[in-house]
Amino acid sequence: MSNGRPVRVGLLGCGNVGGALVELIEREADAVAERTGVRLEVTRALVRDLTKDRGGPAGRFTDKGEEVATAADVDVVVEVMGAVEPARTLILDALKAGKPVVTANKELIAAVGAELFEAASTAGVDLLFEAAVAGGIPLIRPLRESLAGERLIRVMGIVNGTTNYILTKMTEEGASYADALGEAQALGYAEPDPTADVEGFDAAAKAAIVASIAFGVRVAPTDVYREGISGVTAADIAFADQLGYAVKLLAVVEAVGPTDVAVRVHPAMVPKTHPLASVRESFNAVFIEGEAVGDLMLYGRGAGGMPTASALLGDLIDAAHNLRAGGMGRAPSLGTATISPIADLRSQYYVSIDVDDRPGVLSAVAGVFGEHGVSIRSMVQEGLEKEARLIFMTHTALERDMQATLEGLRALDAVDRIGSLLRVIGPE
Amino acid sequence: MSNGRPVRVGLLGCGNVGGALVELIEREADAVAERTGVRLEVTRALVRDLTKDRGGPAGRFTDKGEEVATAADVDVVVEVMGAVEPARTLILDALKAGKPVVTANKELIAAVGAELFEAASTAGVDLLFEAAVAGGIPLIRPLRESLAGERLIRVMGIVNGTTNYILTKMTEEGASYADALGEAQALGYAEPDPTADVEGFDAAAKAAIVASIAFGVRVAPTDVYREGISGVTAADIAFADQLGYAVKLLAVVEAVGPTDVAVRVHPAMVPKTHPLASVRESFNAVFIEGEAVGDLMLYGRGAGGMPTASALLGDLIDAAHNLRAGGMGRAPSLGTATISPIADLRSQYYVSIDVDDRPGVLSAVAGVFGEHGVSIRSMVQEGLEKEARLIFMTHTALERDMQATLEGLRALDAVDRIGSLLRVIGPE
Repeated sequence: MSNGRPVRVGLLGCGNVGGALVELIEREADAVAERTGVRLEVTRALVRDLTKDRGGPAGRFTDKGEEVATAADVDVVVEVMGAVEPARTLILDALKAGKPVVTANKELIAAVGAELFEAASTAGVDLLFEAAVAGGIPLIRPLRESLAGERLIRVMGIVNGTTNYILTKMTEEGASYADALGEAQALGYAEPDPTADVEGFDAAAKAAIVASIAFGVRVAPTDVYREGISGVTAADIAFADQLGYAVKLLAVVEAVGPTDVAVRVHPAMVPKTHPLASVRESFNAVFIEGEAVGDLMLYGRGAGGMPTASALLGDLIDAAHNLRAGGMGRAPSLGTATISPIADLRSQYYVSIDVDDRPGVLSAVAGVFGEHGVSIRSMVQEGLEKEARLIFMTHTALERDMQATLEGLRALDAVDRIGSLLRVIGPE
Repeated sequence: MSNGRPVRVGLLGCGNVGGALVELIEREADAVAERTGVRLEVTRALVRDLTKDRGGPAGRFTDKGEEVATAADVDVVVEVMGAVEPARTLILDALKAGKPVVTANKELIAAVGAELFEAASTAGVDLLFEAAVAGGIPLIRPLRESLAGERLIRVMGIVNGTTNYILTKMTEEGASYADALGEAQALGYAEPDPTADVEGFDAAAKAAIVASIAFGVRVAPTDVYREGISGVTAADIAFADQLGYAVKLLAVVEAVGPTDVAVRVHPAMVPKTHPLASVRESFNAVFIEGEAVGDLMLYGRGAGGMPTASALLGDLIDAAHNLRAGGMGRAPSLGTATISPIADLRSQYYVSIDVDDRPGVLSAVAGVFGEHGVSIRSMVQEGLEKEARLIFMTHTALERDMQATLEGLRALDAVDRIGSLLRVIGPE
């Protein structure tokens, strides 16, 4: 491929992100060619509905995936269809045909990444997926390249913009969860069915990818311990605020032994002095702790057509450069991990418990903590008409002991309701 | 070079950073080999004093640069000597001998980067310098690769840890500049002669490199408009705090026209809701605004032996990988820029003015602003024994008009002292 000939791009999918990428490529083609020596041209695009008027040259659009994935006039394939099939099959076909693939599909990479990386390695071409996690934020490339020599301790991220938007509204405006969710839906930040976001499924898929790349092991979304934010109340957030914490939905990936990794998604209390605490609205950020490099944070737009298209374009230029050089970048090869169970987690905890307001109750409740070896760091009691709310912060304890404590508390007559259990980030 | 043969590393300089790199390579050699297929081995190191006991194999140490730069048993050269010469000559020799070079030397890259990039391009080998700006923070690789297709609008960074530490102490503890500097010196964060840090020379060298990479043009440190923090007072910081701002020393690089860039280093007022405002102590962060990607921030340790060694190691693995693949990554090629003069800047301004406390003074002072077309957004008067302090925030104005205003104010009898002029970041 000479400097003069354009690199021909075939698009699998042409929705929000795909459309933004076409627009970006067309707008920036000259500037990119000048800066990088690579001229990009979209020659094919798979669409669902061929009758829709989309502009662009005649013959560019097709409703048959193979007319993009293995077309003779396509040098690099970009997949932005979402879901595992038919994306997986089309990508495997493209790789077998010697075409590098760039994808923004987190579901796909989380589910069958290892299979695709192997196919790319066998074919000797790139499979790049910067856009699949945290949208426009450069994360995968820094993890794989800049930090290639780094012994990573922990990666913690706010990787879902919808839930961060909801938590920000609850924090800054005292909104209830339901109202904040309604506002996010009205703005198009949350889907009509918000389950994938608010229950942490989206974050869990991203956590699986980050764990795989950070630690070089296979982690599936089903390996990820997962709790969402639908149980977090405005009262929890107000209380966390008083104590000097912000409540965030975190994806946490941790090395806990030579081949053991812990991977979890749950709401957590983050000290306000921690850089993640000031990540507001729908922004994403990933905080990385490495043995040599210390603390790093990468912050930006985790979603949206243009930010995601920007990440795709960066990968596309990389793939085109490597293709021209007749090779590929470094492909990840994934080993086997042992997933550390959530029961083995050591953390501080915040929990709110509504109890009958009568003598002896506090002593009984505190006794359950003691029975299971969970040491109380601080307790506050608030009156609630006929009830009282007890808010506990614990010292560092084992999750299995904390769960046994909650079990024991549920068995007490005087306990009416156990509210949020929040894990607390940071040293005691 | 087969997978089995180690990549032999020659070190130019073996001080704090060089020593950390040797330690890191020796500690992580097995893990890096397993993860990346590249086994690194330090075979040569240039030192100043051969008599010092450093451990390591006999024959590794030399006091002659050419015995590292062009040695037959060195595949990749790492330069951590600092200063322009003899580093420049040794690097040119190494490149000519076909050896990729990795450097942490900001002074060198800022001063003669374009010459070195050309030499590397001619030789067909890598010259990598991630460690030269913002220590362990992945910045150069994201700018050059992840954002290769991005039209960058502005890059603003806290790129000097010493001054950020001093400003943090002044903000959080109300310390004076002199006390905070003394504390930074006691902790080894500031040099006995702190000029390079506190007057912004270090930040200006980094700004020149960032401008070159972000906009693909040659920018020299002397092109950078520069003000330090030695004139910032605890009173300025307290006042900024009341107004909702943090005071930070920023390096700002901006596109102001097709080939025009503005590059400046000065203390600035950053809104507390801006992610840069919460960057505390000696941490660094770079905030990037792109047309498609939106806002990004990269945060971490900007200095220190191990964080810098981590960045060097990432580059070293990259260079070794490319060398094995028989090529090089993408080299920057720098065009010519027009540097926009500071007089053309449009900004909001904060300025404090001490005046005689007598009738008519405020009107005279305000009149000078009006004469030069600088519109006042807010003003506060504080009593100071026989004087009064007037604190102005302006609407957006031209720097040349603001400077003319200051000139006019100095000519007023009633004006005793003009304090800090701080540029204010963010929309009105």
